[in-house]
Amino acid sequence: MSRKLIVAIGGLLPAHREAILSAAEPEGFDVTFRGSPAEAMPDAADAEIIFGNAPELARVAPKLRWLCTPSAGYNQYAGPGVFASPEAMLSNSSGAYGVTISEHVVMMALELMRRQREYSGAVERREWLRGLPVRSICGSRVAVLGTGDLGQTIARRLRGFDPARIVGVNRSGRNPGNLFDEARPIAELDAVLPGCDLLIMCLPGAPETRHILDGRRLALLPDGAIVINVGRGTSIDEEALLPELRSGRIRAGLDVFETEPLPQDSPLWTCPNLLITPHAAGNLTLPYTVDKVVALFLEDFARYCKGEPLKRRVDPNK
Amino acid sequence: MSRKLIVAIGGLLPAHREAILSAAEPEGFDVTFRGSPAEAMPDAADAEIIFGNAPELARVAPKLRWLCTPSAGYNQYAGPGVFASPEAMLSNSSGAYGVTISEHVVMMALELMRRQREYSGAVERREWLRGLPVRSICGSRVAVLGTGDLGQTIARRLRGFDPARIVGVNRSGRNPGNLFDEARPIAELDAVLPGCDLLIMCLPGAPETRHILDGRRLALLPDGAIVINVGRGTSIDEEALLPELRSGRIRAGLDVFETEPLPQDSPLWTCPNLLITPHAAGNLTLPYTVDKVVALFLEDFARYCKGEPLKRRVDPNK
Repeated sequence: MSRKLIVAIGGLLPAHREAILSAAEPEGFDVTFRGSPAEAMPDAADAEIIFGNAPELARVAPKLRWLCTPSAGYNQYAGPGVFASPEAMLSNSSGAYGVTISEHVVMMALELMRRQREYSGAVERREWLRGLPVRSICGSRVAVLGTGDLGQTIARRLRGFDPARIVGVNRSGRNPGNLFDEARPIAELDAVLPGCDLLIMCLPGAPETRHILDGRRLALLPDGAIVINVGRGTSIDEEALLPELRSGRIRAGLDVFETEPLPQDSPLWTCPNLLITPHAAGNLTLPYTVDKVVALFLEDFARYCKGEPLKRRVDPNK
Repeated sequence: MSRKLIVAIGGLLPAHREAILSAAEPEGFDVTFRGSPAEAMPDAADAEIIFGNAPELARVAPKLRWLCTPSAGYNQYAGPGVFASPEAMLSNSSGAYGVTISEHVVMMALELMRRQREYSGAVERREWLRGLPVRSICGSRVAVLGTGDLGQTIARRLRGFDPARIVGVNRSGRNPGNLFDEARPIAELDAVLPGCDLLIMCLPGAPETRHILDGRRLALLPDGAIVINVGRGTSIDEEALLPELRSGRIRAGLDVFETEPLPQDSPLWTCPNLLITPHAAGNLTLPYTVDKVVALFLEDFARYCKGEPLKRRVDPNK
């Protein structure tokens, strides 16, 4: 009886399948490729390993030993009952999204600073609009909330624009790779916000990050501050953000929301001074990201087969 | 009889006026500030120095010794009859626009690579669009045509995104500041284009740059190439570009055009795969740029008063 590996990810290229087969078959694995978790439901019962973002498969996979999600976030695996198999390990793909999400952040920052929505509206009307006051990353005081792979890659991209400074804010107050001009523990966030022209949020979803940017903290930001969130929507109190956007005191770029998809009746759709993208910053639609997700899985797969600890193992309940 | 300095620039702050006055008055200059060249017409007759982009003033200023334009380009001063005073010197403000134009270039590149127009159209319709294939500066092969202040600043910004390589193309084939992975003389442009995912054009307007990107050279670009032009519109043969954009083989971001303002009946307004901005990349609406333009003027003003050669003197007929 052969071992079962289910790969339930859309967008894999033939080269990716080939790489997975070349690694798995010599270890005695029978590999099933499915375009989505839903299509893989009939295969879950026998699965030893699942490579896919698929809590619904974990629920019906009693023989599961390891699920590797191609996402960086994994709070969808928290709580009792997600894993039918009590001994199943979970790993994530942290490290795969820095490239695509950092480019999204820079794009959003520049679109907001350079009034691109107003310019593109004028172009729609064939209007030769000129002279809108603009701003620059160069000389701006930047704070990055969350200094993992995302925050670090964002800092590296922004550095090339000569900002006045980049402060990293995290749990420990440590400065990973010295990529930040300064690192501050999250307990000192209130002291960071008043000196922050551009606040970038790339925090994971967790009880302690929920509404970390609430009304009180929004009020600490200086007039004209720009807030960008590419982490989890729950980090911002959207109700408290709305009046700040409507008054124009703050501008924001949001890729993530408290409820996704954004409900049809959300006031955010038409809110001024707000740039929205539909959780597109970290889509698996950039070939680099898919390459990286597969490479990270194969790295941990080799460790799994040798009985070594997984490099990206995570605990969904922590 | 005091000497006359006319400053005909919009958007100066009190601090800028103060700095100019502090430098000019001790040298015996009477300074007249006007918001635009048109408003300064009555003052031109006596002017020794004009600080403004104002060929119309140069035409009616027989005592002019020096005109400093706050623009980088100066082909508007070429030809006979622009200067009523035969001995008038011209200087430009090259070096003031790298910051703002490089951010515009990165914004345009990311908007095109990340399909931002399609995403923002979906957001207008309250549609949770996902899954559009995107691309990345990371790993892209970049070529920059023109390696002066603009090209160099663009290269520095792009470097932080880990492109596969950045080739600089210029007249000499020299590599200024070693900012480029490779520098090639313009004579070898045909050899550069086939390996170019992202082509950035920041060339001055001149007879030898006219239609430097013509139909034959456009055809040398690989499928899917992105062209961005923030130099002068005359560098691209727009007629030849149109079919490449319509077929979707090439995508482009244009801030400059063969005729500006872009005529109401231009087919470019509605052309697919084209991102248009209204010559807004280098607007004097970024405070950093105004600061820099004034600082550069004051540097040359000090040299002028000491009888030293101007640092940024240019010959409009070369």
